[in-house]
Amino acid sequence: MSNTLGNKLRVTVFGQSHAPAIGAVIEGLPAGFAPDMEAVAAFMRRRAPGRDATATARREEDAVEVVAGLNERGQTCGAPLVGLICNTDTRSRDYSNLYRAPRPGHADFAAWRKFGDARDVRGGGQFSGRLTAPLCFAGALAVQLLAKRGVTVAAHIARIAGIDDDAPDPVHPALPLYEEGAFPVLNAGAGEKMRVAILEARRAGDSVGGVVRVVAAGVPAGLGEPMFGGVENRLAAALFGIPAVRGVEFGEGFQAADLRGSQHNDAFAAENGLVVTETNRHAGVLGGIATGMPILCRVAFKPTPSIAREQKTVDLQTMEQVPLVVSGRHDPCIVPRAVPVVEAVTALVLADMILEGA
Amino acid sequence: MSNTLGNKLRVTVFGQSHAPAIGAVIEGLPAGFAPDMEAVAAFMRRRAPGRDATATARREEDAVEVVAGLNERGQTCGAPLVGLICNTDTRSRDYSNLYRAPRPGHADFAAWRKFGDARDVRGGGQFSGRLTAPLCFAGALAVQLLAKRGVTVAAHIARIAGIDDDAPDPVHPALPLYEEGAFPVLNAGAGEKMRVAILEARRAGDSVGGVVRVVAAGVPAGLGEPMFGGVENRLAAALFGIPAVRGVEFGEGFQAADLRGSQHNDAFAAENGLVVTETNRHAGVLGGIATGMPILCRVAFKPTPSIAREQKTVDLQTMEQVPLVVSGRHDPCIVPRAVPVVEAVTALVLADMILEGA
Amino acid sequence: MSNTLGNKLRVTVFGQSHAPAIGAVIEGLPAGFAPDMEAVAAFMRRRAPGRDATATARREEDAVEVVAGLNERGQTCGAPLVGLICNTDTRSRDYSNLYRAPRPGHADFAAWRKFGDARDVRGGGQFSGRLTAPLCFAGALAVQLLAKRGVTVAAHIARIAGIDDDAPDPVHPALPLYEEGAFPVLNAGAGEKMRVAILEARRAGDSVGGVVRVVAAGVPAGLGEPMFGGVENRLAAALFGIPAVRGVEFGEGFQAADLRGSQHNDAFAAENGLVVTETNRHAGVLGGIATGMPILCRVAFKPTPSIAREQKTVDLQTMEQVPLVVSGRHDPCIVPRAVPVVEAVTALVLADMILEGA
Amino acid sequence: MSNTLGNKLRVTVFGQSHAPAIGAVIEGLPAGFAPDMEAVAAFMRRRAPGRDATATARREEDAVEVVAGLNERGQTCGAPLVGLICNTDTRSRDYSNLYRAPRPGHADFAAWRKFGDARDVRGGGQFSGRLTAPLCFAGALAVQLLAKRGVTVAAHIARIAGIDDDAPDPVHPALPLYEEGAFPVLNAGAGEKMRVAILEARRAGDSVGGVVRVVAAGVPAGLGEPMFGGVENRLAAALFGIPAVRGVEFGEGFQAADLRGSQHNDAFAAENGLVVTETNRHAGVLGGIATGMPILCRVAFKPTPSIAREQKTVDLQTMEQVPLVVSGRHDPCIVPRAVPVVEAVTALVLADMILEGA
Repeated sequence: MSNTLGNKLRVTVFGQSHAPAIGAVIEGLPAGFAPDMEAVAAFMRRRAPGRDATATARREEDAVEVVAGLNERGQTCGAPLVGLICNTDTRSRDYSNLYRAPRPGHADFAAWRKFGDARDVRGGGQFSGRLTAPLCFAGALAVQLLAKRGVTVAAHIARIAGIDDDAPDPVHPALPLYEEGAFPVLNAGAGEKMRVAILEARRAGDSVGGVVRVVAAGVPAGLGEPMFGGVENRLAAALFGIPAVRGVEFGEGFQAADLRGSQHNDAFAAENGLVVTETNRHAGVLGGIATGMPILCRVAFKPTPSIAREQKTVDLQTMEQVPLVVSGRHDPCIVPRAVPVVEAVTALVLADMILEGA
Repeated sequence: MSNTLGNKLRVTVFGQSHAPAIGAVIEGLPAGFAPDMEAVAAFMRRRAPGRDATATARREEDAVEVVAGLNERGQTCGAPLVGLICNTDTRSRDYSNLYRAPRPGHADFAAWRKFGDARDVRGGGQFSGRLTAPLCFAGALAVQLLAKRGVTVAAHIARIAGIDDDAPDPVHPALPLYEEGAFPVLNAGAGEKMRVAILEARRAGDSVGGVVRVVAAGVPAGLGEPMFGGVENRLAAALFGIPAVRGVEFGEGFQAADLRGSQHNDAFAAENGLVVTETNRHAGVLGGIATGMPILCRVAFKPTPSIAREQKTVDLQTMEQVPLVVSGRHDPCIVPRAVPVVEAVTALVLADMILEGA
Repeated sequence: MSNTLGNKLRVTVFGQSHAPAIGAVIEGLPAGFAPDMEAVAAFMRRRAPGRDATATARREEDAVEVVAGLNERGQTCGAPLVGLICNTDTRSRDYSNLYRAPRPGHADFAAWRKFGDARDVRGGGQFSGRLTAPLCFAGALAVQLLAKRGVTVAAHIARIAGIDDDAPDPVHPALPLYEEGAFPVLNAGAGEKMRVAILEARRAGDSVGGVVRVVAAGVPAGLGEPMFGGVENRLAAALFGIPAVRGVEFGEGFQAADLRGSQHNDAFAAENGLVVTETNRHAGVLGGIATGMPILCRVAFKPTPSIAREQKTVDLQTMEQVPLVVSGRHDPCIVPRAVPVVEAVTALVLADMILEGA
Repeated sequence: MSNTLGNKLRVTVFGQSHAPAIGAVIEGLPAGFAPDMEAVAAFMRRRAPGRDATATARREEDAVEVVAGLNERGQTCGAPLVGLICNTDTRSRDYSNLYRAPRPGHADFAAWRKFGDARDVRGGGQFSGRLTAPLCFAGALAVQLLAKRGVTVAAHIARIAGIDDDAPDPVHPALPLYEEGAFPVLNAGAGEKMRVAILEARRAGDSVGGVVRVVAAGVPAGLGEPMFGGVENRLAAALFGIPAVRGVEFGEGFQAADLRGSQHNDAFAAENGLVVTETNRHAGVLGGIATGMPILCRVAFKPTPSIAREQKTVDLQTMEQVPLVVSGRHDPCIVPRAVPVVEAVTALVLADMILEGA
């Protein structure tokens, strides 16, 4: 089903922006795992709004209550783990405008064609970016599971508004730590320029997009299956589930299309009795299967569709084009807050594959 | 399983390059469908080697024998349809070198880490591009199913060796017909330059990569499911199953990351009582769900890893780095032959989603 | 996953007997469906304890809170529906005895071998019969969905402690209504005898088993798929998920083994332009596919394993056989309360198959 | 899909009785497994017709050709294994009668309601018992995989025409070896009586049914998952895929319904440092999870629907009831030949669960 990710470690995300609650059911966690709930909360704070001048001023308190799946000593017991986040701010309002006027660039219109008048438009309903909170909850657990197996997953901003951050060394990528920084870049100077560009766009009533890069190190060679069960297939299938994602590429990605084979192939070498590659343009995946080298993936985000400028839409009742001004406070750039989401999704996919023996 | 694509229309591809046969089992075809086998054969010829000076001179006769699934009048009867392609050229040779020396850029090394010494190295085994033949067989059937529902899928070369073809109008994309042309481009001049670049690379004992663009028109609005069941998720998951694919993007894709929201959002308009968008940067998908506008997707292919130049690998027995020369005749550019494969995979995914009611 | 039932209408049941909550996530409900919550509550009361002298005196208040999946008008909106039942009585106790001494006939020992010391033993943990409450919640919705499509599902007690109720006419089965009766039988006299037998067993510190029969009328001919996707396969797979079930049979079931073909085959006849069978020993299913005749299925329940008598178990710490007295108040016969559970599971499977187009 | 069994070890059975071929695709076999093809052939001979006076005189040569999945040394290589059985006897005939007159007790009518006129009626099409040949092929491989892990699966005739064979000791069940006997019973005398009853039924132009018992010993404790992923759920789901099966029960099954808890519970005891049960009425499964004791399951088969006597059907063209005489030679009792099929299906399910880590 569409709200479900994974085979052996399976996450079902539920809720709508203004339903009583959102949350996630996580099946397949190994029994006896005692999650570090402090670390989970820290991970989720990286996604929370209101931490940086460039993000929306809105604040959410995303306290997760675990209502099932733990034994009396706080360990997973073999039953599905359920995390619940209550939506505290769900006062009733007049949503009739939203029912009539789909916002450009949002899922509103598509949802109408799919679910008709029964769709939940309040705050974006089930398409709200708020649903990435339970995803981060599940992902934070996956990150802990992977750490026990020597697998590290770390994402950072690669590009915003045309400004590139440094690229990490693909063979020995630096894995940044994000506990503190709300704006996870490798080069602080590039981050500063991005911040300026975001604030500039906001002043213009506009928004910007960007690219998140994620690195997974320590992935065991042999992970992944041929054809449709490869690391790339499964990561891409999941990453496109993050709102606003429009492209996913591995290693050189679209740049690889412009290289010659002699420039792109990575030579094999022996290192401490192991086979490695001298370079890592293959980004840790050949034939869909992990080689043991770091996996590198880039994810393209479109600019936030909610902008302050007047736009054109169609009144679904009169079927006439009408002007639309989207009110409310929105992130002028979703990319910084998307970083932990990309990390969460990547960790969930890899943990699922490892537990599955894929 | 990794060799299986789809939920309701499900294709299982099997075989290895030098096994007695390769083929596909197709479950879920509606009963009473009489495939046009001439059209299927024509579709498969587009993938066959030896049709263009830029491709390998090797020839395969990929005659598909349907051994199950049809009634005595040539209609699908509700049972799985099975297409078998016998591998005529599977004489035994000495493969000991291949067992020891993984080719750079190929799946050889990853397969060794996954399957150990039991892997089939003959001609690339199950990782061979030859497995795209049964995929095209299944895809050709999906194309016919979609045509009955008014959905057209067409792919073409967008870029090779850094040379771009024209981009189609995203709102009213021209859907090229490929019955004849072995080099499917929109602008013949661009195609000529690409050909020159390919031949140049071949002369240099090298290879080039490129980008395939696929357009799906007539996809019903509302197709696709939220979060992980969207059109993008499912297409990407499948497209990364094609050998050598390194990136998938929709609409503006990675370019979208550099646009502002006011530049990227598509205004809604009313046209003949329907809601359309004035532009189509969203490429027919919002929130994972089809809007009814054409779906546009670009797929990046790395340069063929098989090159004539000497490369470096590791002898898996001695664990020492050794030089390697990959012999045999290979496509200096896989992109032209990948065009029908991209089309096949896209058609299979869309037909599956439509039959599933996704 | 094991806690999940269904393909297109998918229910994931979660919780443990003493976790903060139990509940169910229901994916795939058609958008725009407004569940009759009164009817849902009435359905669930049929499963609730304390309604009959033969059942345990324990009382639970199984109020379901729908925390996601409805729009502001109480209709399904296309997002997963989540029903939550808070476990009010979860005070901490000393469970050390349960950790050491697996109860005969219960899942305790198997759970230990599967999940080790991390298993949740409190009140039976995830194996508790309490988990059938969210199953009934989901099933009550399925019953309503089926009713809109003319499909009726009704279960009743067929046998308890060796006492048979009347068998319904398989061609025109009476579908009893159970709103009131806590002891759903067709023949009140048989029910009285069963009650006596149950109370007798209780007095003896013992328990009894029985058989539930479920009838589904109005199932569209053609539902079900060949081989492993048949009506019987899918019903049986689900019904064995109800605690204490040990056998499932359709139509004549195990009796069919003793009949001759001429006695068992049902003659076809024409009735009002439709093909029917004169008798219904095939119980509405041939080759796994529904014929349109009523589907009849019988489900065998073992006697409640919790009995007042002293039994023998093994102390998992000392690995020595020790006597065990299971304390607490228990149902001396689970069958009456299992009737709505069988109905719920049957309705979920049929609704899933219908929505799936199976 | 309905023709597919299993998650990690996945079998897709294909073909129709009169298609060019039938066969099976087996995904998920561990790489490096070298099947003993002699043993496979011996296993399949147990299902073949014409081996006993009580069976049909028809002969089939079910030689399986492995067309994919093995490396050049005859080991599984990680790719799907494909076994093909050519249907040699598929000469065209006049099937118009079969299209019009569904045979009582067969899938003909249900198939018409599902697939309409496109269904393949020739020899029963995809519903033919012949499809159990590829199932036995796959099962024979599963038996070998299980044997390497110390798991033995053996089925035998428990009852035919009301005549019972001896029941094996459920704690230490004798596992009969069937290489030679076409009529696998524990007590030769009972087998003789069954034979007489079958021949008697045949002389009367009639048929009889029976029960097959299957025992699985050595199944690791802890196998199986709670609720819908239990050993019983998965075995039952698969066993109902065998043609003519009408009931599945574990341990005491329907008899358990008549026992008291004190009679049915198995006391735990310690034996060589392991926990065992003194008796085995739970048949190796508690809460859906294996306890390590032998698993015992009984499967009820209805009498063969093909009988020589005149029956009544409906002419689907005129919609009038008409007499029908089913011609051809048929098994008056399918049970003896079903024994290896039950074994095959049981082995496939258990091997799948073990490989899956269920």
